[in-house]
Amino acid sequence: MSENTKGKLVIIGGAEDKEGKCEILRKVVHLSGKENSRIVVMTTATERPEEVGSLYKKIFKRLGVKTVDIVNINARAEASNEEYTQLINEATCIFFTGGDQLRITSLLGGTDIYKSLHDAYQRGALIVGTSAGASAMSSNMIVEGSNDDAAKLCTLNMAPGLSLLNEVIIDQHFAQRGRIGRLMSAVAQNPHMLGVGIDEDTAITVEGDNFYVIGSQSVTVVDGMCLSHTNVSELMPEEPLALTNVKLHILPKGYGFDLISREPKIIQKESTKEEEIQ
Amino acid sequence: MSENTKGKLVIIGGAEDKEGKCEILRKVVHLSGKENSRIVVMTTATERPEEVGSLYKKIFKRLGVKTVDIVNINARAEASNEEYTQLINEATCIFFTGGDQLRITSLLGGTDIYKSLHDAYQRGALIVGTSAGASAMSSNMIVEGSNDDAAKLCTLNMAPGLSLLNEVIIDQHFAQRGRIGRLMSAVAQNPHMLGVGIDEDTAITVEGDNFYVIGSQSVTVVDGMCLSHTNVSELMPEEPLALTNVKLHILPKGYGFDLISREPKIIQKESTKEEEIQ
Repeated sequence: MSENTKGKLVIIGGAEDKEGKCEILRKVVHLSGKENSRIVVMTTATERPEEVGSLYKKIFKRLGVKTVDIVNINARAEASNEEYTQLINEATCIFFTGGDQLRITSLLGGTDIYKSLHDAYQRGALIVGTSAGASAMSSNMIVEGSNDDAAKLCTLNMAPGLSLLNEVIIDQHFAQRGRIGRLMSAVAQNPHMLGVGIDEDTAITVEGDNFYVIGSQSVTVVDGMCLSHTNVSELMPEEPLALTNVKLHILPKGYGFDLISREPKIIQKESTKEEEIQ
Repeated sequence: MSENTKGKLVIIGGAEDKEGKCEILRKVVHLSGKENSRIVVMTTATERPEEVGSLYKKIFKRLGVKTVDIVNINARAEASNEEYTQLINEATCIFFTGGDQLRITSLLGGTDIYKSLHDAYQRGALIVGTSAGASAMSSNMIVEGSNDDAAKLCTLNMAPGLSLLNEVIIDQHFAQRGRIGRLMSAVAQNPHMLGVGIDEDTAITVEGDNFYVIGSQSVTVVDGMCLSHTNVSELMPEEPLALTNVKLHILPKGYGFDLISREPKIIQKESTKEEEIQ
């Protein structure tokens, strides 16, 4: 992340509550200007843009936001549309829905909208992604991989993401789809990257060099910095990986993480004071 | 494990290959006397004992074993049957099938067969368990818990196992059923216990204070000794757990683990020399 970035991120593991307390979506509204938020819902990832777009518009309106626009880019040619870039330029929040992360990057990568998105983040807008939109946030994104499988390389595909969050690989629907194996495979390939697996109805808010967990389930952090051995470069595609001395943290709401020191934190309920866990 | 124990264990994560190379079942035969093995198949866990018993009998016969007996105990009264205890006393291998681990412990616990089983292990017999039979090997066994879920206590049930392997909690069908959450929950409750999650068609052979991985997938070791924080004692049942600084190892075939030092090992292919990974 650039030192000058003023924006924040909310990265949601998918299936966030849309009918009950809406803890996560309410936080999105809170962080982006409350009733004065100007939210742009980007439906590029989904093949049901009208349905998904109008659902989120309805929810954000219900949560008190006055200005909610839907931008549905379905071809690269549309990603230079001036009306759309103008909406992004004025937005306090840009919200990427679920669907297919490769649609987001292949349709928007290198376009005017892509530039506007990064400009918006630099000037202080909130960028939000859920499910596929979550995967797309990082510089290296998981496109697909096996669920409920041992760590292997054969089915893991990665691609360049939107690069709003660097040195991190996000995975979503994490516990619910049994994705620890594929995230470990991704981390093994370059343990400098921190693996962050976000459960459904759970999110991280990224503010400066820290993230904080919100929602009903947990975030799994896979830290390979102390990895003492892996056979990742020697394997046939179907062979299971070896990894030794990987550090793991399971963090529910009330916990945070320092992305620089790689230390988890307890966020005390009674105050905003933070305490590093040694 | 008692210092005087001469027996070995083979603990299989379920769904071991029964038609191809049969790597794991072949290893069972090899470790228990080859063609002179005397294998007793214990079908107590399953509710289809005749089908399952005759399947394993057929396989072990095919692998060259001359003496294979099936012991199907379906009531505690049968667990003092002299014919059965005699078979156990003469066996070089006692093989527990899959099914329900609570059937194994509730039907056999404290009976003559239970005593014979431990005597057999002390004198050098090979004890094998697959799936439910694997879970039953340790002193604390997981009875049930959520698959594909965040680490939580609400659905995790543990019970006393057969105590052939102490200070370890086994889980099986591990990656295939997304069980990292439930194993983490078990370890969080007493991080002195080492969590060992065994994938399908994968096994550990326990010899003295070490185990070695065989089969086609991986073994996940969850070491909570360095756990710096957990909220496990403060939670409501449905709330997700926090755990920080858990050590993880993913070990496929060709790797081992020292249960005392808690260090993984590479077993070099060219020789029997072992190398500790620092």
